[in-house]
Amino acid sequence: MLTLADLHPLTAYLTQIAHLQSASSVLSWDQETYMPRGGSGARAEVLATVQGLAHERFTAPEMEELLWRWIDVDNGTILDPEADAPARAVLREVLRDYRRAKRLPTPFVSHLERTCALAHEAWLGAREKRDYALFLPHLTAIVTLKREEAAYLGYSETAYDALVDAFEPGMTASRLTPLFAELKTALSALLARIMDSPVRPAPLPAGPYDAQRQLAFGSLLLSAMGYRFDHGRLDQSAHPFTTGFHPTDVRVTTRVSAEDVTSSLFSCLHEGGHGLYDQGLDPAYYGTPLGEAVSLGMHESQSRLWENCVGRSIELWRHFYPLLRQAFPGPLARVSLEEFHAAINTVKPSLIRVEADELTYNFHIIVRYELEQQLIAGQLSPADLPQAWNEAMHGTLGVTPRDDGEGVLQDIHWAHGAFGYFPTYTLGNLYAAQFWQQAQRDLADLPTLIEGGRLDPLVSWLRDRIHRWGRTHSSDALLRRITGEPLNPEHFMTYLEGKFGAIYRLA
Amino acid sequence: MLTLADLHPLTAYLTQIAHLQSASSVLSWDQETYMPRGGSGARAEVLATVQGLAHERFTAPEMEELLWRWIDVDNGTILDPEADAPARAVLREVLRDYRRAKRLPTPFVSHLERTCALAHEAWLGAREKRDYALFLPHLTAIVTLKREEAAYLGYSETAYDALVDAFEPGMTASRLTPLFAELKTALSALLARIMDSPVRPAPLPAGPYDAQRQLAFGSLLLSAMGYRFDHGRLDQSAHPFTTGFHPTDVRVTTRVSAEDVTSSLFSCLHEGGHGLYDQGLDPAYYGTPLGEAVSLGMHESQSRLWENCVGRSIELWRHFYPLLRQAFPGPLARVSLEEFHAAINTVKPSLIRVEADELTYNFHIIVRYELEQQLIAGQLSPADLPQAWNEAMHGTLGVTPRDDGEGVLQDIHWAHGAFGYFPTYTLGNLYAAQFWQQAQRDLADLPTLIEGGRLDPLVSWLRDRIHRWGRTHSSDALLRRITGEPLNPEHFMTYLEGKFGAIYRLA
Repeated sequence: MLTLADLHPLTAYLTQIAHLQSASSVLSWDQETYMPRGGSGARAEVLATVQGLAHERFTAPEMEELLWRWIDVDNGTILDPEADAPARAVLREVLRDYRRAKRLPTPFVSHLERTCALAHEAWLGAREKRDYALFLPHLTAIVTLKREEAAYLGYSETAYDALVDAFEPGMTASRLTPLFAELKTALSALLARIMDSPVRPAPLPAGPYDAQRQLAFGSLLLSAMGYRFDHGRLDQSAHPFTTGFHPTDVRVTTRVSAEDVTSSLFSCLHEGGHGLYDQGLDPAYYGTPLGEAVSLGMHESQSRLWENCVGRSIELWRHFYPLLRQAFPGPLARVSLEEFHAAINTVKPSLIRVEADELTYNFHIIVRYELEQQLIAGQLSPADLPQAWNEAMHGTLGVTPRDDGEGVLQDIHWAHGAFGYFPTYTLGNLYAAQFWQQAQRDLADLPTLIEGGRLDPLVSWLRDRIHRWGRTHSSDALLRRITGEPLNPEHFMTYLEGKFGAIYRLA
Repeated sequence: MLTLADLHPLTAYLTQIAHLQSASSVLSWDQETYMPRGGSGARAEVLATVQGLAHERFTAPEMEELLWRWIDVDNGTILDPEADAPARAVLREVLRDYRRAKRLPTPFVSHLERTCALAHEAWLGAREKRDYALFLPHLTAIVTLKREEAAYLGYSETAYDALVDAFEPGMTASRLTPLFAELKTALSALLARIMDSPVRPAPLPAGPYDAQRQLAFGSLLLSAMGYRFDHGRLDQSAHPFTTGFHPTDVRVTTRVSAEDVTSSLFSCLHEGGHGLYDQGLDPAYYGTPLGEAVSLGMHESQSRLWENCVGRSIELWRHFYPLLRQAFPGPLARVSLEEFHAAINTVKPSLIRVEADELTYNFHIIVRYELEQQLIAGQLSPADLPQAWNEAMHGTLGVTPRDDGEGVLQDIHWAHGAFGYFPTYTLGNLYAAQFWQQAQRDLADLPTLIEGGRLDPLVSWLRDRIHRWGRTHSSDALLRRITGEPLNPEHFMTYLEGKFGAIYRLA
């Protein structure tokens, strides 16, 4: 029987590649946190070399020779029918990655990277000047290349499927479209009820909130979540992110605003959720797919579960709000727990995705999903995108951007060529609610534990069921294993209706 | 005529290797500054892979093919007799590095690295327990391997020459021994006169010195020196160091002590001197020897010039001492400029190298030089080293360690296999004094400029004459070009006698 140990020549080779990827992640982390600004040109070159080497090794003839020792070159099946589950999972997932990598010709990859690097610069300028025309030629070039990429990768239904598959393996437009349509209907109905409610939570006082105390409170929350500071650290960056070099070194960043304490609180909870996933991967599997997260959607489920399901619950703040008020007695002295809880759960249609509440956030995603699908299908020309964006925002949320800066230019994703990425945010919300529901079943006293500041049973639950498995199971399989059913958006709706029903006193 | 541009295939290949070395330096910087402690195991693996790849590429057949396009494979001469100076320098220096790298068999290098990694751990434990016996077997193994290394590398006179050549190309024991003997005599005579002086500078008050203010003052000094913060940064680490990834990203660290403000002041000046060198290398030559420092001794000359010649001068503090007193009014209110200047120039034989003054520091080096030479020559057994150490310290400085923790175990260098490294510290002092003397000739109003806080003319002088040339000239050639004479320790003695003569009122 073939075991993982038998695959040592392959896993040792992959581990070397993982070392290059870890090095590249450290270089990127440094770039976002501490690098002096004059160093950016040289850093881009170093990153290109290190990432290029990783790609070169992964697509080298050695890799092929290793794979065909255990896999049938013709049909991709594993030669040993009795291979154990970890060995099967490693071979299956490495083959998947290898095939995707090999299908893209190296000159094409370089050309796409250069195009995206230029588009990134152009996007920065266009957003600053709120002038879509500066970005249009770059986006046009990227859309053309992404269609080409899809052709190289291959697909059975639509070109978009080949792209979304990079972020959420196995996901397709034919699954997303009805899912999002159903969700849109349900969310619209709930939003209408909320908008009709006479309840209007008061916003939190506009500070000032001391930056050092915000960072200290963020660390307190992260520690309470079980995020290990001996295996990680918290820094500041322009956009919060999480990056893992190894389960023993997983770093999170936050953004601090003197006027809005929620920015750091919820970015710490969000990135902490990502961080727990990466710290919870099995270090014995480092370098293999079993030491990697399942998908972006699954990763996002962990951040959303902590940011929203736990982080915006009354139970969490029963424990932490007295401490928060102690830390910021000036602005928070007259805000009660209930007022705080309502403030952090205010629903209001708005223009900017990253500032949207938990409910309307999904409309932002659905709008982007529909537009990027049309772009890739050639049904929408990049020249017509701003108008289509504005109409979609008006049609879905009743808001219209005054300019493209608060409209189509707000996100960096398309400038990076990340088409098919946006849906993973909403998938993350759906997965999170489904897991959250199951966790409440499995851990009967979860609300009481959270009220007591005891988050470790939930951490263990997530670690045992999700984190430590890496890519052993697909997203779909993992959902079924843990919750007994496939992806079901009703759990998300039940969760939203329960919470907002109480806050907005819905009938 | 062969020019540097013609060498593009070679320099492009070398630039890729430089990218890996830069990546490795970022990984090491992070390790010393921000890495969570749990991440050390994984980091060591990543570093080993990245450094291994750099070595692999540098010794690969491609490298050989590139070199023999322009160099005669038999006698190492450059094929084109009309090649221009930069092309000649690049080929000469790359060949030198390549030959050194190729002469060491890969299994030997791995074995040495593993031995040193274990020795490092053992040294940490031995130093903590002040128990040399714990370190002895490791040092014995390293000495044996270093003798073997010298045999692989080859040498014409003594095995030690092959080792010191790694740090100070072209330097040999037959040059160092008489140089250090002469220096020892002159230093001993000066030390005796100082010890006979009735002057005893009072130590500075033991703080408290606020850490944040120390860092701010360090940044102020660095900025005044012309260290560019848009191409660098200042952080804290256990042992101060400088690391350059590219001339546009050169970072320095410092150590902050609440009791002793001089620790951060002089480490900032020292590392700032190193930092200026690395920031002053020509970015157009990045990846080639012309974009690298000449030698460790020459690098140290830059740090010593700033730390000592400039940093312990009365002129510098005429400008900065009022600012320092403003920053630390508590401890420094009653200390006059002259008292401060005397305190930072106190000469006193002591046991610990890194705490030694500018004069007695060199005795620490000479003791180590003599011992490591005997170890490599097989004239001294590692078992007898502590006794030899203690006798040498007593004989030279009149002090005897109470235990090996403050004796032979104080330095990490031998545990890292760095035999032949110590002399570069004193060479740095000698080079620095010789440059300092010349700078005063070339810049007639230098003392006045420094008193006015105007350090930029000195920076430009150093940049034009030293930094921007990289490895174009050897240490010897550079000294001759700039000062018109070979290495001459009299400049160092003149400098010391001038300063200490005034402070200690020597006849």
